[in-house]
Amino acid sequence: MNARKVAVLGATGVVGQRFLRLLERHPWFRIAEVVASDASRGKPYAEATRWTAEGDMPASARDLEVKGLDEDLDADLVFSALPSGTAGAAERACARRGRPVFTNAADLRMEDDVPIIVPEVNPDHLALVAPRKGGGFVVASGNCTSVILALALKPLQDRFGLAACHVVSFQALSGAGYPGVPSLDVLANVVPHIPGEEAKVETEPRKILGTVRDGRIVPASFPMSATCTRVPVLEGHMEAVTVRLASLADDAAIVEALQSFRGGAQDLRLPSAPPIPVRYRTEVDRPQPRRDAAEGDGMTVVVGRLRPDPVLGWKFLVAGSNTVRGAAGGTILAAELAVSQGLA
Amino acid sequence: MNARKVAVLGATGVVGQRFLRLLERHPWFRIAEVVASDASRGKPYAEATRWTAEGDMPASARDLEVKGLDEDLDADLVFSALPSGTAGAAERACARRGRPVFTNAADLRMEDDVPIIVPEVNPDHLALVAPRKGGGFVVASGNCTSVILALALKPLQDRFGLAACHVVSFQALSGAGYPGVPSLDVLANVVPHIPGEEAKVETEPRKILGTVRDGRIVPASFPMSATCTRVPVLEGHMEAVTVRLASLADDAAIVEALQSFRGGAQDLRLPSAPPIPVRYRTEVDRPQPRRDAAEGDGMTVVVGRLRPDPVLGWKFLVAGSNTVRGAAGGTILAAELAVSQGLA
Amino acid sequence: MNARKVAVLGATGVVGQRFLRLLERHPWFRIAEVVASDASRGKPYAEATRWTAEGDMPASARDLEVKGLDEDLDADLVFSALPSGTAGAAERACARRGRPVFTNAADLRMEDDVPIIVPEVNPDHLALVAPRKGGGFVVASGNCTSVILALALKPLQDRFGLAACHVVSFQALSGAGYPGVPSLDVLANVVPHIPGEEAKVETEPRKILGTVRDGRIVPASFPMSATCTRVPVLEGHMEAVTVRLASLADDAAIVEALQSFRGGAQDLRLPSAPPIPVRYRTEVDRPQPRRDAAEGDGMTVVVGRLRPDPVLGWKFLVAGSNTVRGAAGGTILAAELAVSQGLA
Amino acid sequence: MNARKVAVLGATGVVGQRFLRLLERHPWFRIAEVVASDASRGKPYAEATRWTAEGDMPASARDLEVKGLDEDLDADLVFSALPSGTAGAAERACARRGRPVFTNAADLRMEDDVPIIVPEVNPDHLALVAPRKGGGFVVASGNCTSVILALALKPLQDRFGLAACHVVSFQALSGAGYPGVPSLDVLANVVPHIPGEEAKVETEPRKILGTVRDGRIVPASFPMSATCTRVPVLEGHMEAVTVRLASLADDAAIVEALQSFRGGAQDLRLPSAPPIPVRYRTEVDRPQPRRDAAEGDGMTVVVGRLRPDPVLGWKFLVAGSNTVRGAAGGTILAAELAVSQGLA
Repeated sequence: MNARKVAVLGATGVVGQRFLRLLERHPWFRIAEVVASDASRGKPYAEATRWTAEGDMPASARDLEVKGLDEDLDADLVFSALPSGTAGAAERACARRGRPVFTNAADLRMEDDVPIIVPEVNPDHLALVAPRKGGGFVVASGNCTSVILALALKPLQDRFGLAACHVVSFQALSGAGYPGVPSLDVLANVVPHIPGEEAKVETEPRKILGTVRDGRIVPASFPMSATCTRVPVLEGHMEAVTVRLASLADDAAIVEALQSFRGGAQDLRLPSAPPIPVRYRTEVDRPQPRRDAAEGDGMTVVVGRLRPDPVLGWKFLVAGSNTVRGAAGGTILAAELAVSQGLA
Repeated sequence: MNARKVAVLGATGVVGQRFLRLLERHPWFRIAEVVASDASRGKPYAEATRWTAEGDMPASARDLEVKGLDEDLDADLVFSALPSGTAGAAERACARRGRPVFTNAADLRMEDDVPIIVPEVNPDHLALVAPRKGGGFVVASGNCTSVILALALKPLQDRFGLAACHVVSFQALSGAGYPGVPSLDVLANVVPHIPGEEAKVETEPRKILGTVRDGRIVPASFPMSATCTRVPVLEGHMEAVTVRLASLADDAAIVEALQSFRGGAQDLRLPSAPPIPVRYRTEVDRPQPRRDAAEGDGMTVVVGRLRPDPVLGWKFLVAGSNTVRGAAGGTILAAELAVSQGLA
Repeated sequence: MNARKVAVLGATGVVGQRFLRLLERHPWFRIAEVVASDASRGKPYAEATRWTAEGDMPASARDLEVKGLDEDLDADLVFSALPSGTAGAAERACARRGRPVFTNAADLRMEDDVPIIVPEVNPDHLALVAPRKGGGFVVASGNCTSVILALALKPLQDRFGLAACHVVSFQALSGAGYPGVPSLDVLANVVPHIPGEEAKVETEPRKILGTVRDGRIVPASFPMSATCTRVPVLEGHMEAVTVRLASLADDAAIVEALQSFRGGAQDLRLPSAPPIPVRYRTEVDRPQPRRDAAEGDGMTVVVGRLRPDPVLGWKFLVAGSNTVRGAAGGTILAAELAVSQGLA
Repeated sequence: MNARKVAVLGATGVVGQRFLRLLERHPWFRIAEVVASDASRGKPYAEATRWTAEGDMPASARDLEVKGLDEDLDADLVFSALPSGTAGAAERACARRGRPVFTNAADLRMEDDVPIIVPEVNPDHLALVAPRKGGGFVVASGNCTSVILALALKPLQDRFGLAACHVVSFQALSGAGYPGVPSLDVLANVVPHIPGEEAKVETEPRKILGTVRDGRIVPASFPMSATCTRVPVLEGHMEAVTVRLASLADDAAIVEALQSFRGGAQDLRLPSAPPIPVRYRTEVDRPQPRRDAAEGDGMTVVVGRLRPDPVLGWKFLVAGSNTVRGAAGGTILAAELAVSQGLA
């Protein structure tokens, strides 16, 4: 397979840089275009970018000329790392020009014709864009907290059914971008508010875990509660999850459901798919965001502390990488899935 | 009123030091005896103690000779800051010698003849020890997380009734004593496990919010779920609380119930009682543990972010000082209440 | 003495808020005017300000109407909390209108007619502005790191003479204002660069420790080296100081010089003067910024770990409050000194 | 070359675990024996060890039976990760039984017959043990702070000569082992004292940078000053270094000396040798411990901010990995050097 040419919208920003890092040695994709706002247009990428991601700037991107958002692109597919507000219109425009767009941004996630794809969870949701195969469309990845949660919930939904879900998140600073959260607010503190986040976490997982019917997604019907907080952690979101299951369960069966869970991504041997999407740890004090976010190169979520809950039935904790699985890595995996299905 | 002579058990430890700080200029109490393990016995307090609390060691305690746990004490009442395991037997022994004992330790909290007193919440629970007025008895203060929670729940219980409560805690490092949590575990991390804590938080609030019947406490019957975590915060526990109320409510009525809540402690003008036991803040990002733990000199808990919850009905956050209201300060306030009722 | 009416320039900002807190119950000063940029002009202070300082907004300031920088002020003296760049011109303008101005800003510190006053160290430097008694003038307080350092150096300069000074600073986040340092940069990290800071610390202490001759300040002549870093500490700067003394010394004599040091501020019983300006602690691990910044309500600096140095002769550590002694508190103390000398 | 069988003394501890991680896939060495205190003796390694290092326990070590310190070992060479106090005697005993011992411990570093080897800096110091080729001897790696410093100083010593060195360290928590520094001491704080550390940093670099004469090491003669502090950083020591050079220099020449520095380790293509031992970064705010500790897989130190110093002549900052270059990785590299020279 020849490497597909990809463009990255918002390539100079924090999220865009993470896309470039993950794409640099990608076996299927080759960074062909970097796109940013007009301030950077026409400059070499190395000059337009204050590199803040780990490691050094990818050599293959340094000399690319930054394109503007309104220019046509020599690319087979497009990744969008644009900020909310700007993202939606630019992504729609790209799609109209016939490109398959895979976006990390929130703007279009809840649109009817845009699936939120977590490849192990809902590969069938690509059916929404299949009719436009060969043309343009937009595929979203979910909000970081929602994606990590969906991976932990899916095995339970499949095996036992979900009747309710309550989550309290402990979210890392890297989720807020750069400069993001002022150190004076969050050092030795917890900030129990992330603008707009709870609304996303109360809706996106239900769409991700929904079913396709007549070319539309019917969201899962269980009620979903979210409290989202920012903690002084660099990378890795942790979530305290409580669920009411639709049928009887016991510890062993739930753990078994989590451990045995696989998805199409693993079967298809997609390049960014981790060996297992969910790992269950038995230590009493795991998962922990700092120690577990890198599991499976950031693509595996880690579950632990499953125990009965006096109010809803069962509770556990899950942690995962917000910048890899919950952002650039998850979006790339969704694109790999679409490619493997012949959609891009 | 002449100052009562008080003894502090476990006076050389972290919690004991906090008792001494709060007692140093207390209008009703005078530090008369400091008691510790045999290693310290016979030494002047200043020599036996590695002072770790804020500020300098109270001058009035420096020259006191440390007594052993088995010695009789020249004291009108006794505060216990002993560690779990040691505390129960020593406190029982003190009570048998006729002393009223007010303890911060967990050992006896769930015993039938030991009330857990949060003065604004359940002053009537002192009825359990009233029959032994003039003799000895043990009064406990609750676990730090439980006490802060009980203060926030009481106004809701009174006004609407409680049908279920779910709490996820963000607990400060000072709650683990010294040396406590290793920095390598908790810096830039969250540790989702505190040994024994969840069991306490699932039982103590129901006892505190219970009713006295036939000289015994009947715990409140609502189911109670707790997930307890340790966060890199120095002082101040925060809790994400979700409740199902027993009757219809709206935002305004709940906020009004919280803001108007007063307890006997305020009416009785007890020296350690804050102006209000619960403060409701309207900012979208409050309470925060670092910024709100000192409210009311550490004796007021701060509630915020009340909003409807899709699963249980209502949710909010509460924060308070784990070392003052949740430990030494709360225990001293309970003793003040007992004194004001003529029990000590 | 009737309370003098004071104006605070930059009153809505982080530093301005700290001025208001310290001035609220000041025995000599009464907040009469709050001044800010045009965006806030005409609004009540409570509406124009996002309060970020500790505690609640001073009640006395809430209803004051915010004035613009170009308006004349009904004030006996003026405090400036303006940002660098804006400060210099506005302060000069105030002085031209006849006001004594006491500024926390850096713009004019190195001007010939502006003394940098640390009341215990160089009260005689007020001689620079004495000729304009009754008219307007500008008095600066020093950079936070420089002021804390000057307090520790002065006793050594007086007793032994200073031949060289080398300092490495560990500076708190509150020194960078708000939003200041992004948490992603500084959590679990040290940032070894603070723009412009090293140049200040290599010049200001020499001016503060200089001598007045013919109405001008002749800076101290010793060479001064500074490396300034930002550490994840909320409040309190620490400095590792190495000095070459001009004459022979021993440990005991140096400690005695530090401990016995007093300044005019203490003798004059100025309201903001701490009992002692320098405290020497003998513990092997002190001073520490978090534990020692509040010494003397933030106005005392704490020195420790004095020991011989193989390269320059002697070394020690000093810590102090950057927001109180190193900013608003130090500026107010300088104003008190000027008032006590009949200059304002 | 057949893999040499290696034993790790203290294999169950924090440092021992880091040895195992680095040795697991080593091309020259194979973990053959794990040795620990009597409490672990006879147990499988997986059972005797609470794994705290990153990643999972090496599969090759899980089933090894833990040997006691007094047992003879089936090993070609021995790595020691024993704690100070225990280490010296055990290492001497191993050497007497004919083993080459490479130790991370401090006990024997300053002994006349034990060189402190930093392969790029002083490979010739192996001359001390060469006479005992084929028999046993002890080779030490240096204290973490000393090793990082020595790598930065060596190019300057070679090119310009060193007349004095003054260092203030910012040391990471991982340097203190586990449980190490209590979080209550170091969160949002700096602790300016590490027991015994300053004495090591004032002596070891001079031994490392010394010359071999008549079979003994003559330490470098420049005076050396160290102030050592603990900062809330997980991994990576940073050091503010000031030097007086013995001959004239300018910025460009010093940077060139640092950048062009190579050592025998690179020429010999030792498996653990990084591409370059010293990297010079030109950004104004680098090096930083968190962002630069992983350079060269933790084996390269990063220097930055070179600038003239008013007191001693020149100053700069250096950062490096305390757990890799400053501990297990540096010790393994020293062993590789010895092997390449036919000594082990």
